[in-house]
Amino acid sequence: MDSSVKLTNSEYSPELTRVPSLDYIKNFIIEPKKGVPFVSVAAMAKLINNLGIETSIKTILTRIESDYKRWHKFEKSARYASHSKNGVIELMPVSDGNMFACKYVNGHPINTKQNLQTVAAFGILADVATGYPILLSEMCVLTALRTAATSAMVAKYCAPSNASTVALIGNGAQSEFQALAMKAVLGIRHFKLYDVDKAASQKTYNNLQGYDIDVVICSSAAEAVQGAQIITTCTADKKNATILHDDMIGTGVFINAIGGDCPGKTELDSKILQRADKVFVEFEPQTRVEGEIQQLPADFAVTEFYKVVQQNQSGRDNDQQLIVFDGVGFASEDFSALVFLRDLLVQQPEHLVLDLITQQADPRNLFSVVRES
Amino acid sequence: MDSSVKLTNSEYSPELTRVPSLDYIKNFIIEPKKGVPFVSVAAMAKLINNLGIETSIKTILTRIESDYKRWHKFEKSARYASHSKNGVIELMPVSDGNMFACKYVNGHPINTKQNLQTVAAFGILADVATGYPILLSEMCVLTALRTAATSAMVAKYCAPSNASTVALIGNGAQSEFQALAMKAVLGIRHFKLYDVDKAASQKTYNNLQGYDIDVVICSSAAEAVQGAQIITTCTADKKNATILHDDMIGTGVFINAIGGDCPGKTELDSKILQRADKVFVEFEPQTRVEGEIQQLPADFAVTEFYKVVQQNQSGRDNDQQLIVFDGVGFASEDFSALVFLRDLLVQQPEHLVLDLITQQADPRNLFSVVRES
Repeated sequence: MDSSVKLTNSEYSPELTRVPSLDYIKNFIIEPKKGVPFVSVAAMAKLINNLGIETSIKTILTRIESDYKRWHKFEKSARYASHSKNGVIELMPVSDGNMFACKYVNGHPINTKQNLQTVAAFGILADVATGYPILLSEMCVLTALRTAATSAMVAKYCAPSNASTVALIGNGAQSEFQALAMKAVLGIRHFKLYDVDKAASQKTYNNLQGYDIDVVICSSAAEAVQGAQIITTCTADKKNATILHDDMIGTGVFINAIGGDCPGKTELDSKILQRADKVFVEFEPQTRVEGEIQQLPADFAVTEFYKVVQQNQSGRDNDQQLIVFDGVGFASEDFSALVFLRDLLVQQPEHLVLDLITQQADPRNLFSVVRES
Repeated sequence: MDSSVKLTNSEYSPELTRVPSLDYIKNFIIEPKKGVPFVSVAAMAKLINNLGIETSIKTILTRIESDYKRWHKFEKSARYASHSKNGVIELMPVSDGNMFACKYVNGHPINTKQNLQTVAAFGILADVATGYPILLSEMCVLTALRTAATSAMVAKYCAPSNASTVALIGNGAQSEFQALAMKAVLGIRHFKLYDVDKAASQKTYNNLQGYDIDVVICSSAAEAVQGAQIITTCTADKKNATILHDDMIGTGVFINAIGGDCPGKTELDSKILQRADKVFVEFEPQTRVEGEIQQLPADFAVTEFYKVVQQNQSGRDNDQQLIVFDGVGFASEDFSALVFLRDLLVQQPEHLVLDLITQQADPRNLFSVVRES
């Protein structure tokens, strides 16, 4: 683990890492009066390290898949987006009637110029019956894990049967998670990296050493996609880019296009979408605005992926098809990831407890909290 | 201060109350790399106690009013609401282009049956330029303060000049804050309480002792409104109730109707609205759905209150008018309250700092946070 994530603020005392007993945790997770569990970045790192990155991704995938299976149980909406010159701030609420989840997430590619994260995310899980938040967590790391898990879930249904090589175009914050997800779920062992910034590819290359996979750095996107049956595009620039040109893409390919996720931010030549045998999306109303298909007419045919998980539609029918996943990230995936985290905390309580909600004995006596004595 | 708000969880260590220097605070409030400041319930109570409840309300009022003066600078939307059998969970985002605020708030009147709060709220303030959260805070107490400040702000423009008595109908969590706001801003010294539950009125009566005001408990709403120039309705039941009947209300009155704030939750006889000389609202698209005016046709004339603050419209024209404020609570008021809190922290740093956002040296190297060593 990078030492830079170690806590250096004087506000952190070692006592903070003391954790209550399992029984206590079980109680407060269903007992809002005890306070709101909070998972810091350091706690998340420890939790994921202990479980293992690949196991974490596979477990989140199982959770996402089971939530896709009950897609109609969720109250869904396109995310709220507040656009500004430098980027976007988004809210992603969703509810299954028992729990409500909401992620706060931004997208500011310009941030890296001042060594800030492009994405600074956190999320909450709340109990619908009482409206009380039951979990607050960092979601920078958790989002990377759930995005990789979603891609691997779709790839499971859509990659050619002979898939052995993945091209990773764009080697930023998401790339290693994507690689390990494809390894863990599909058994992929060969990865070809490309980024306009070679240092980014080198970073990904270095990070992926020791994971029993073969990684090479390519000098162009065209070189990277050669011989790859799965192509993941995951670049960060907020513009209509053409990372993949039509003539670079043959048949028998699964394109996992997850970088185009904002109005004015796309990665694919629209001809690829038009030529594709199938284009899958998460939640169509959101993807129409944010995804690669924003380049195309509103009636361009796409299929919501839950239909494949529910076996109402097929994923890949034969190894010759060109299939595109126009992934933008949907709130139900964050919901699934937060539920994964809640369950993990019951086994391994790494969280703090925040005094976020008033707890006076008489609920109507809120004034007692501030009354001058 | 009620002892029930004291921290009892073993996770709280005394070290947590140590605070950094003023310079440090000033730095991290504009320096997201240091972590996210967090204001707990206990910290909020201490801050408000130190400043004084009435001064706090007056300061928040000044902030709300100045933000109403620049109403058009805000990116506004009706709040997101997820309704369920027991209540509602809402998200209230707003941005002025420099800062983004969002409050999470629920409304579950049924909660009091299990000694939980009806409203469990928290909020964030974020920097639009980077998308980084710069403040996370409890908002149970802060919402009560800003709601009272908003009512007092509207009353300042809309109460009859001879206003000396306020009727407070509904003596739940908000009532004492309303009383002290009307005292602090308008100099009101006489309060008449009524609640269907006499214990609630007694609680409010007890809490208001020692504030140099005259408080009486009434046995009916009709008795409470007699001789009152300002009538505040603030009941919690989620239903179409008629707390005020038309024949109870004369002229020369300002009705501060803040309890009807949800579809299917109203307090006023619609005849009062139809008879009123003026009906003011905060943000019309939201109030049409949530406010008292949900009882009336969509073209029923109302005026957004910012126009009064900006002096484009008058508030009260003479002491005979019947004026209604159909208050539901708007996101800009939470924004104003969070900015008030941010400023307060610079003077009096009572917050903790949360490890909510990853801080690895190379932003693209998110993987380093979880990499197995």
